Amino acid sequence: MRTQVCIIGGGPSGLLLSQLLHRAGIASVVLERRSRDYVLGRIRAGVLEYGSVGMLEQAGVAARAHAEGLPHSGTYLAVQNEGFRIDFDALIGKKVMVYGQTEVTRDLYDAREKADGIVIHEVEGTWPHDLDTDAPYVTYTLDGTEYRVDCDFVAGCDGFHGPSRQAIPKDVLTEYERVYPFGWLGVLSETPPVSHELIYANHPRGFALASMRNPHLSRYYIQAPVDDPLDKWTDAAFWDELRRRLPHDAAEALVTGPTIEKSIAPLRSYVADPMRWGRLFLVGDAAHIVPPTGAKGLNLAISDVHYLFKALKLHYGQGDETGLDGYSQTALARVWNAIRFSWWFTTTMHRFPEQTPFDQAIQDAELRYLQASPRAQAALAENYVGLPY
Amino acid sequence: MRTQVCIIGGGPSGLLLSQLLHRAGIASVVLERRSRDYVLGRIRAGVLEYGSVGMLEQAGVAARAHAEGLPHSGTYLAVQNEGFRIDFDALIGKKVMVYGQTEVTRDLYDAREKADGIVIHEVEGTWPHDLDTDAPYVTYTLDGTEYRVDCDFVAGCDGFHGPSRQAIPKDVLTEYERVYPFGWLGVLSETPPVSHELIYANHPRGFALASMRNPHLSRYYIQAPVDDPLDKWTDAAFWDELRRRLPHDAAEALVTGPTIEKSIAPLRSYVADPMRWGRLFLVGDAAHIVPPTGAKGLNLAISDVHYLFKALKLHYGQGDETGLDGYSQTALARVWNAIRFSWWFTTTMHRFPEQTPFDQAIQDAELRYLQASPRAQAALAENYVGLPY
Repeated sequence: MRTQVCIIGGGPSGLLLSQLLHRAGIASVVLERRSRDYVLGRIRAGVLEYGSVGMLEQAGVAARAHAEGLPHSGTYLAVQNEGFRIDFDALIGKKVMVYGQTEVTRDLYDAREKADGIVIHEVEGTWPHDLDTDAPYVTYTLDGTEYRVDCDFVAGCDGFHGPSRQAIPKDVLTEYERVYPFGWLGVLSETPPVSHELIYANHPRGFALASMRNPHLSRYYIQAPVDDPLDKWTDAAFWDELRRRLPHDAAEALVTGPTIEKSIAPLRSYVADPMRWGRLFLVGDAAHIVPPTGAKGLNLAISDVHYLFKALKLHYGQGDETGLDGYSQTALARVWNAIRFSWWFTTTMHRFPEQTPFDQAIQDAELRYLQASPRAQAALAENYVGLPY
Repeated sequence: MRTQVCIIGGGPSGLLLSQLLHRAGIASVVLERRSRDYVLGRIRAGVLEYGSVGMLEQAGVAARAHAEGLPHSGTYLAVQNEGFRIDFDALIGKKVMVYGQTEVTRDLYDAREKADGIVIHEVEGTWPHDLDTDAPYVTYTLDGTEYRVDCDFVAGCDGFHGPSRQAIPKDVLTEYERVYPFGWLGVLSETPPVSHELIYANHPRGFALASMRNPHLSRYYIQAPVDDPLDKWTDAAFWDELRRRLPHDAAEALVTGPTIEKSIAPLRSYVADPMRWGRLFLVGDAAHIVPPTGAKGLNLAISDVHYLFKALKLHYGQGDETGLDGYSQTALARVWNAIRFSWWFTTTMHRFPEQTPFDQAIQDAELRYLQASPRAQAALAENYVGLPY
């Protein structure tokens, strides 16, 4: 098979790139290791930057997001059970939208199907070849048969563990990493969210986040040791601990119920540089990981798609290589902004085992300053809603 | 001898408090361990927040500062030899003033003398007594004779090593501290300053600061190991190293000459809490130390004087104790803002031996964000010119 852009990975970034390319008349094939049902069952981030919504619009897949998504014009921070609000809309005139990654992915699948886009599921052993030539190709196995896709470019949208980044020679790649000394214990619950906007809570017992997927589906997290056995966290134990960390009014209003998902995820920051090697372009988690604080993961993947799509359009439309040549530097500049923000937000909102009394007092001072200063709030807000592309 | 407020320490904060009290009809005595010449010979900070200038005005000692001081409406930051400007005036409508601490102290001495204020120099063995009663007193020795000052209140303006803080029982005091793993090697030079505004430079070889006292007297600093032998730093070695770290255009314009002062100072953050114990009120360095990055030391001392003077006026004028009772909490809230800011500014501008590649990339990202974002610049600016009292 031959195509113009071979996209490894059928998550939201691969599908979005494929859809955008289609609308620009550029052919692509998407290769996905999992089944469609598996991909759609993954529960991930749920907050879209205003620019991410713009990208969905550009791809023609924003109708349901606008109909069912929840625009949030602010968020709550809490310190020791007392909350205060950051009003994005008043501070910088922009909002975010709560709309689950699962829903984004579903909308993209629907659009790809309508357009007869090629998405091949359950492929095995996918590997990109000859990336440093002008005739790269990707091989994979499906039902025991080996296939080959010849292409002009390979987009590595295959996540942190995918083959794309591993195909870049080790001596070419610089890696940056920070592992945080805690995890997030998260639950989904078919209960009404405790607040109509998110609550990020810094509490002496640890961080907590009250989030949501929709008006009937709540998503809650608490900071916990990453190696905590899950069976220690009965539903009752989780709700008790969450209640202790939320602002008093939220704790009182909290509606609890059986949890329908419960897991502990580690937190880390990771960046691979460069994001381009020959004809291979890394996108999203394949090149960078953020801690979930501030919900930058999906948004960064969409930002990468923005730059890569623009670069490919320039290449195919005008024979202009500047976008492709500058992709790594341009995408990484924005990546580092989000890496910095999510590192700062994580550092400011969590309790760290190694914190000295001075460190803790600085964290308290930072939060009090944030509460008091519209200028500091505006800086937070512009990062939270997403810096411009 | 009997007075209303016994002030231990005749540096700028003790003299300013004494002068303000005098203008409000409240009697004070200032006890200073050193000679007047010694105090006036000390070379310290040189950047006044706009609120500090306001305090000098309130004390009637701002005439020379306004005539000879240099209003700065912005400052330069530099990364890897490329500078960018933070325009305080455009961002938040305020300026700072470059006017040496030595000059502030001289103006205050002149004012105290004109008003026949009592400043007793070269006292030894000063110690406050009975601070937890309503009849405290301070003893000291002068020329071999012991003296006693009975008073209503004691103001501890006697710096980090003075007796005041040490008079507070250990179990009452919580101390917060961060020692930075480097020092500042500073020189004074009778050369025209390289820039009409300050330049704070982050460079792979370490931090540098181009500052000034007046149009003919430059003050330069470079980050250096705190235990570096001074004789390693010949004038030539200093100027060479400074030139490497400054922005290229500044390095080229730098006028060098013999240095008239050269020393290495350690950097640390320190806070004692509470700042009041019984009839004793700590002011300035007696209660807190900041690293010099951002020049908060003298300004924080003046801010403490602001709160203490207001509290004493309330007490003597209206018998209202709320100011005195709230002094520690009110002063400390502003102290922690400046502690946080100078910690952040120090952390962002210096190279740390323990920095991982990730930490370094975060620092780079922070500076690039600062360069690009007027909102982040405004947050820096409001802290640099001084948060309101």
